Amino acid sequence: MTLKEAISRIQPLDKEAMEYTHNRWNTLGKPLYSLGRLEEMVTQFAGIYRDKNPHIGKKAVIVMAADNGVVEEGVTQTGQEVTKTVTENMTKHNATICIMSSMSGADVYPVDIGIATDSDCPGVRRRKVKYGTDNMRKGPAMTRQEAIEAIEVGISMVEELKEQGYTLLATGEMGIGNTTTSSAICAVMLNQSVEKVTGKGAGLTSKDLEQKIQVIKDSIAINQPDPEDAIDVLAKVGGLDIAGMMGCYIGAAALGIPIFIDGFISSVAALLAVKLVPECDPYLFPSHCSNEPAGQMILEALHKQPYILANMCLGEGTGAVMGFTIADYAFKAYWELPSFEQTNFGTYEELD
Amino acid sequence: MTLKEAISRIQPLDKEAMEYTHNRWNTLGKPLYSLGRLEEMVTQFAGIYRDKNPHIGKKAVIVMAADNGVVEEGVTQTGQEVTKTVTENMTKHNATICIMSSMSGADVYPVDIGIATDSDCPGVRRRKVKYGTDNMRKGPAMTRQEAIEAIEVGISMVEELKEQGYTLLATGEMGIGNTTTSSAICAVMLNQSVEKVTGKGAGLTSKDLEQKIQVIKDSIAINQPDPEDAIDVLAKVGGLDIAGMMGCYIGAAALGIPIFIDGFISSVAALLAVKLVPECDPYLFPSHCSNEPAGQMILEALHKQPYILANMCLGEGTGAVMGFTIADYAFKAYWELPSFEQTNFGTYEELD
Repeated sequence: MTLKEAISRIQPLDKEAMEYTHNRWNTLGKPLYSLGRLEEMVTQFAGIYRDKNPHIGKKAVIVMAADNGVVEEGVTQTGQEVTKTVTENMTKHNATICIMSSMSGADVYPVDIGIATDSDCPGVRRRKVKYGTDNMRKGPAMTRQEAIEAIEVGISMVEELKEQGYTLLATGEMGIGNTTTSSAICAVMLNQSVEKVTGKGAGLTSKDLEQKIQVIKDSIAINQPDPEDAIDVLAKVGGLDIAGMMGCYIGAAALGIPIFIDGFISSVAALLAVKLVPECDPYLFPSHCSNEPAGQMILEALHKQPYILANMCLGEGTGAVMGFTIADYAFKAYWELPSFEQTNFGTYEELD
Repeated sequence: MTLKEAISRIQPLDKEAMEYTHNRWNTLGKPLYSLGRLEEMVTQFAGIYRDKNPHIGKKAVIVMAADNGVVEEGVTQTGQEVTKTVTENMTKHNATICIMSSMSGADVYPVDIGIATDSDCPGVRRRKVKYGTDNMRKGPAMTRQEAIEAIEVGISMVEELKEQGYTLLATGEMGIGNTTTSSAICAVMLNQSVEKVTGKGAGLTSKDLEQKIQVIKDSIAINQPDPEDAIDVLAKVGGLDIAGMMGCYIGAAALGIPIFIDGFISSVAALLAVKLVPECDPYLFPSHCSNEPAGQMILEALHKQPYILANMCLGEGTGAVMGFTIADYAFKAYWELPSFEQTNFGTYEELD
């Protein structure tokens, strides 16, 4: 499915299914609305699934892995070979996302959308758009065409997983240097100073942080990305992982699947996706609030409140899969709570 | 164990175990501190268990059930017979806390610490201090001696569960009228206006809310509770459920068990417990932030940040048991994450 086709397929949520679910919550033996956002989540899923009797089925996290040319400017503690190593580890139950996912009952799908070298690891899906982006301090990270191609990789991953029967998704990423690109996008899209939205990522000295800030400033200055044009921002100062996740969000909306956003980098991708295709917004669910300096800011820009506050900043989708567990609680309550009749006390009434 | 004995048994956390655990986190294959509060939680549990190799074992939620004499003033939508019915439902997998607990792998222990009538339901622990409190609008809800007795019921429940091998606890409550007592305590302890800390509880009209506020104001005026004396506040405008939960917190600290606080009412009990026995503080863990108007305020007074934001306000311990799941994620990561050696990339270093 092309980006254009995906956009044309996105429907508003099914109001009838939502109303039915909302009303059924009120027949359950508990004070009205007392399960708060758990109730809202099930109702929203009903609207997404267009199903009065929504259930969660198979869950997966799609991990977009890509390298960033800007790493040659010394903005990271580790070299870009780590991107490939960690991505391959994800196929061997040897990465944090595997541990977290096994607890949330989700499968992990790492995607090579732009790792700088080739991987022959069979569990890594090969959907490489290019061997890492170009160094954005010297010019655009990628062409507009490459950016769209990477978005379409994300869409195709959702198509594939839908065919495999997955009905709940999350995004994650792996890419040395991707807090640098994310902070650049954040500065441009939120019109904030680079200093305010840039942190130490996976570990930098204070001096290195100064360098990172300068590199981002230079990258924005040389590329002049247009904040009104999400693809322009993505192509000039973004990354292939971010593009792929944008595609996941848009694809999930096109195919009627709820999708959890992970932390900072995933949220930046969500912001670009919503900017490009506002209709995908109700299909996107926050999970946790990243400990990166702009973690809270980007969620506010998305008008989404996190479900989990854990000061995590590991990436890979590790916080997003915890969102699955919140959904599990919500659905368990929805389907297993006794009705007012079963509880042997009168109903709570809607009063004013 | 008496309250006095419990207080004398509380130890500071084991710094050595904490340091060991903290350092071990840094040998795991992930950016330093990138699991944030999950790392801190495991480290704190190590200090509580006084064990360099902490594990979570059996989990339980103690649900303190009691009636409140103030209900005769028309501060609730339902009658106090609902307290007994819901408490009995908890023994039949027919209450919300049972559904939520089964997902978090916890057992539910409802305790009749002051239900207004007798229950012959075998699953309800009979530890009744009195048949509901007196109407606080007319005088103290209970005597100082009754308050201490109820605190000691909480302590004894923790002793019993520790003997049964439980190593992780949470508190919950069931008691029609207990948002009224909690708001009263909140107003006194935080020196806030009654209007600001009082909500509609399980469902009130706006007119009923005015009545609830007036009743709380009158109760404070007639009793003149001393905010410097937690037991005075508890006895005069509190409830037996709140006293029981205070005892759970103090008992858990005395016996070296971490304990999750639930929402508004549980947090009010935690605030009184910490006021009475500051040493119990590091044994107490927040879970979610209640949707009651003072939910956030009371957590701030406790200097604790919630892990979960779900706008829930159901009580019974329903949010606290979700805290168990956060702990499960933390411990799974701690014990299953690959080391740096296993991940095949260099260690992340502590820089500045």
